Amino acid sequence: MAKSRYEYVRDFERDDRLLPSTWLVVRIDGQGFTRFTAKHGFAKPNDLRALQLMNRAAVAVVEAMQEIVLAYGQSDEYSFVFAKDAKAFERRESKLSTLLVSKFTSAYVFHWAEFLPQTPLQALPSFDARVVVYPSDRILRDYLCWRQADCHINNMYNTCFWALVDKGGVSQKDAERRLKGTLAKDKNELLFSEFGINYNDEPEIFKKGSVVVRGTAPVDVADPSGAVVQRQKPVVQTLHCDIIRDAFWDARPEILGGKSARDRDRDRDKPRPAADCHRQ
Amino acid sequence: MAKSRYEYVRDFERDDRLLPSTWLVVRIDGQGFTRFTAKHGFAKPNDLRALQLMNRAAVAVVEAMQEIVLAYGQSDEYSFVFAKDAKAFERRESKLSTLLVSKFTSAYVFHWAEFLPQTPLQALPSFDARVVVYPSDRILRDYLCWRQADCHINNMYNTCFWALVDKGGVSQKDAERRLKGTLAKDKNELLFSEFGINYNDEPEIFKKGSVVVRGTAPVDVADPSGAVVQRQKPVVQTLHCDIIRDAFWDARPEILGGKSARDRDRDRDKPRPAADCHRQ
Amino acid sequence: MAKSRYEYVRDFERDDRLLPSTWLVVRIDGQGFTRFTAKHGFAKPNDLRALQLMNRAAVAVVEAMQEIVLAYGQSDEYSFVFAKDAKAFERRESKLSTLLVSKFTSAYVFHWAEFLPQTPLQALPSFDARVVVYPSDRILRDYLCWRQADCHINNMYNTCFWALVDKGGVSQKDAERRLKGTLAKDKNELLFSEFGINYNDEPEIFKKGSVVVRGTAPVDVADPSGAVVQRQKPVVQTLHCDIIRDAFWDARPEILGGKSARDRDRDRDKPRPAADCHRQ
Amino acid sequence: MAKSRYEYVRDFERDDRLLPSTWLVVRIDGQGFTRFTAKHGFAKPNDLRALQLMNRAAVAVVEAMQEIVLAYGQSDEYSFVFAKDAKAFERRESKLSTLLVSKFTSAYVFHWAEFLPQTPLQALPSFDARVVVYPSDRILRDYLCWRQADCHINNMYNTCFWALVDKGGVSQKDAERRLKGTLAKDKNELLFSEFGINYNDEPEIFKKGSVVVRGTAPVDVADPSGAVVQRQKPVVQTLHCDIIRDAFWDARPEILGGKSARDRDRDRDKPRPAADCHRQ
Repeated sequence: MAKSRYEYVRDFERDDRLLPSTWLVVRIDGQGFTRFTAKHGFAKPNDLRALQLMNRAAVAVVEAMQEIVLAYGQSDEYSFVFAKDAKAFERRESKLSTLLVSKFTSAYVFHWAEFLPQTPLQALPSFDARVVVYPSDRILRDYLCWRQADCHINNMYNTCFWALVDKGGVSQKDAERRLKGTLAKDKNELLFSEFGINYNDEPEIFKKGSVVVRGTAPVDVADPSGAVVQRQKPVVQTLHCDIIRDAFWDARPEILGGKSARDRDRDRDKPRPAADCHRQ
Repeated sequence: MAKSRYEYVRDFERDDRLLPSTWLVVRIDGQGFTRFTAKHGFAKPNDLRALQLMNRAAVAVVEAMQEIVLAYGQSDEYSFVFAKDAKAFERRESKLSTLLVSKFTSAYVFHWAEFLPQTPLQALPSFDARVVVYPSDRILRDYLCWRQADCHINNMYNTCFWALVDKGGVSQKDAERRLKGTLAKDKNELLFSEFGINYNDEPEIFKKGSVVVRGTAPVDVADPSGAVVQRQKPVVQTLHCDIIRDAFWDARPEILGGKSARDRDRDRDKPRPAADCHRQ
Repeated sequence: MAKSRYEYVRDFERDDRLLPSTWLVVRIDGQGFTRFTAKHGFAKPNDLRALQLMNRAAVAVVEAMQEIVLAYGQSDEYSFVFAKDAKAFERRESKLSTLLVSKFTSAYVFHWAEFLPQTPLQALPSFDARVVVYPSDRILRDYLCWRQADCHINNMYNTCFWALVDKGGVSQKDAERRLKGTLAKDKNELLFSEFGINYNDEPEIFKKGSVVVRGTAPVDVADPSGAVVQRQKPVVQTLHCDIIRDAFWDARPEILGGKSARDRDRDRDKPRPAADCHRQ
Repeated sequence: MAKSRYEYVRDFERDDRLLPSTWLVVRIDGQGFTRFTAKHGFAKPNDLRALQLMNRAAVAVVEAMQEIVLAYGQSDEYSFVFAKDAKAFERRESKLSTLLVSKFTSAYVFHWAEFLPQTPLQALPSFDARVVVYPSDRILRDYLCWRQADCHINNMYNTCFWALVDKGGVSQKDAERRLKGTLAKDKNELLFSEFGINYNDEPEIFKKGSVVVRGTAPVDVADPSGAVVQRQKPVVQTLHCDIIRDAFWDARPEILGGKSARDRDRDRDKPRPAADCHRQ
């Protein structure tokens, strides 16, 4: 029963280190969430508590993995962006994706009762994950544009769909037919004229999704003489703002700066402007 | 804000389908479990409740993924073997590993309180996962031998180590020194002569680990005339038996038969002999 | 101009070792050979000299790479099978495919004038190559069946097509139309009734392609006493025989035996039966 | 003998498309060239005719593959840089590397007699190739710096070594010992004081290697009225210049511009300054 005799099976393992100096995006996605949300009676088109639970789990991941510079979530998906020069686990694809999705799932189940206290968990939620490698800042930003544009398009559609069904008494089939081929302005018009809904007034978390970034917040600390002074402390923030236009990025040059969070910790006293964003 | 303009970022996704007609093994491993078990006061060298929680999570995974033909677990790791002809998710590596580890983690957190009711969960458990491809039955069996031999070697060492420390009042450093270079028979002798422990009498779950397989169990059902008859129903069983020698495999030819569980369901009335194994 | 400052670019190289204990097939294919053969006036449907040049280049490759156990060629393609336990270049995919295709191309250009002495080489022939991994003997044999069936189907079609065009005075378009949807027996009948050609009498090299294997041939050597004795010497043979049915494989168990050529060299005195095959 | 029955073996082929929007470098390397050059009596430390044959083969490759923007060669190796947005063969790794190395080998054998007319080819030259993906312009340039620094270091060493051996009558072992641990300035000094060689006066092709780029050259053509006018025609040029410093790149912004050669053909009338380079 010598150990070494079987050790040769390790030769079948594969080296899956990802290309250095590129952005690594890990996107997780709820598996079978149509059924899962139905089973647990999530509100339609958006369940605020469920979105906040997703955000809570994302914050747990960002706090656990120092090289994540930004995360973006909407619906039952979340994308985590690792710094270009991230070194964690030698950039091994399987390590990064499986640890991340495991930590996310762990937090999702652990925090469930805080966000949905009236709803006992009756099925095991699970998520898949994939890693995609993006070679340039522009392409990374286009990836995030893709997800936020997707959020916008789906949310507008779903807002109309459920207004027609829940408030207009229209069947789901007829609602689908009504919306087929309509443009954004048609949907805006429909919401306003038929249901008195101004789409612009919908909550930002529904329209824009959620952006998790590292920032700083003031804390009061005692200096050596015992006097109370204010210091900036690193915090993980959840915002609901546009990340397609330049303003978000211009205000946070360090995200694309390629510096890892570890390096940035040294400069932590600089406060982070958040004027363009709506904090939760 | 047209969607299509950003869709090109999908071209950066990679096809990660694994070689057809090969055994796929997904092995999950606890991340930072030395710290996690210390924090939650797990018993040393083995915590039965924690092992049973691992087994419970493994059963949840096997129930959720029909093409898993066997799972083997010990300590904070578990290996799941997919049928040679498994087709799930087109055999995409990232899908298989991330969904599996997510489901496992979900079950681990969800069932925690059942197995450790006195121990509140105070940190988020997480697991990594990797997929390894094995081309032949012999090599797959050698992989499983490797894991079970590892279980045996570690358990014997740990049993001695903690006997010396907990019962012998020896420091951890001295216990290490005592055991350095000892063979299996030396450890057997040490346990027996110094602590009156017969290693062979230790629980099978500690010595052999846990084997999750599909089997059948009799159930009483009413036939069309209303009479009660016995039928064999497929069940997932957790055993603690040797999987290195041929007996286990000879008694279950269908595991290496390359048939998926789905196909085998048709033949489900055949009872499964389990005489060589110790059911939990 | 320090060397080390730039050495980091090596980190971008990828480990491309192929799965151990599997059959590796490298298939090379002529690039743009329709144009290349037209330019050099190759005979239609088969140019014997050109096929023999392909075979000559294949033999050069088999002689250079000891772990190749068999090669099969037809038209402008050739497949090389490496032993299941081949170790060359650590089974690195790029090394195996590029060295092989480079050696083949080198031999093709070098030996051109021997086989086509009247035809000056007027363009640079080139080949692509790919490696495919096959996990079992049966699948490897099916791969070779696939290529030989392809040879048979194409050759029968082309023999009819060029008979119609060259002997029947039919336009290429009309020949195509005539053959559309015909079965093997229709084509046999057409060849015989219209052109007096018995397809079975066509050269084996055209119907079956070419099989390069390692065998032995008798040589006369002097023994220590000076007497002349016959010894078996390893040789690379080119055959034109069926490799779909079992006979070929039953007569050469060592090909699928997983032994590398190096190992087999030790047993080299065993003569190789070739009764089922037509040597060139 | 149905074709389709075996077609399933194609499922074992792997998709090997490389990451979009990155620089692809294919580096070829002579296999066993120490023996090959000895066999053919190449001059030491550099054989001009052999280097020119390498350059001729590289030009053949650059002419055949339109998306190559630059090639750099030294000794028995050559690196070919494909445009960031190269689309050839869907960026499939195996296609790019094998076709390139095959074309290079073909040209090397084909043109041999032009460059070494007195030396019959007695062995089959072969090359391996690998593809490396570089995500940014800076890293691509560092790759090329690495190769040119390597050329410089090796050439200086070899120039000293063979001066000591051929002119100084020193044994190879002693020459090695003499040079161990010496710096560039020590080698410069040794060459000058002992052999009267000013290293700076050595041929640029030896010191810098060879750079193949696309440029333009003036040609006389008749305009519609019959008058002779000068036009710029695209040509492939072989230079021997520094590519480590910025001057080379500043003078050729289109190389890193990410435009494929095809696109650049439209702007072909702009002449290319070559003042900083020594044409062959």
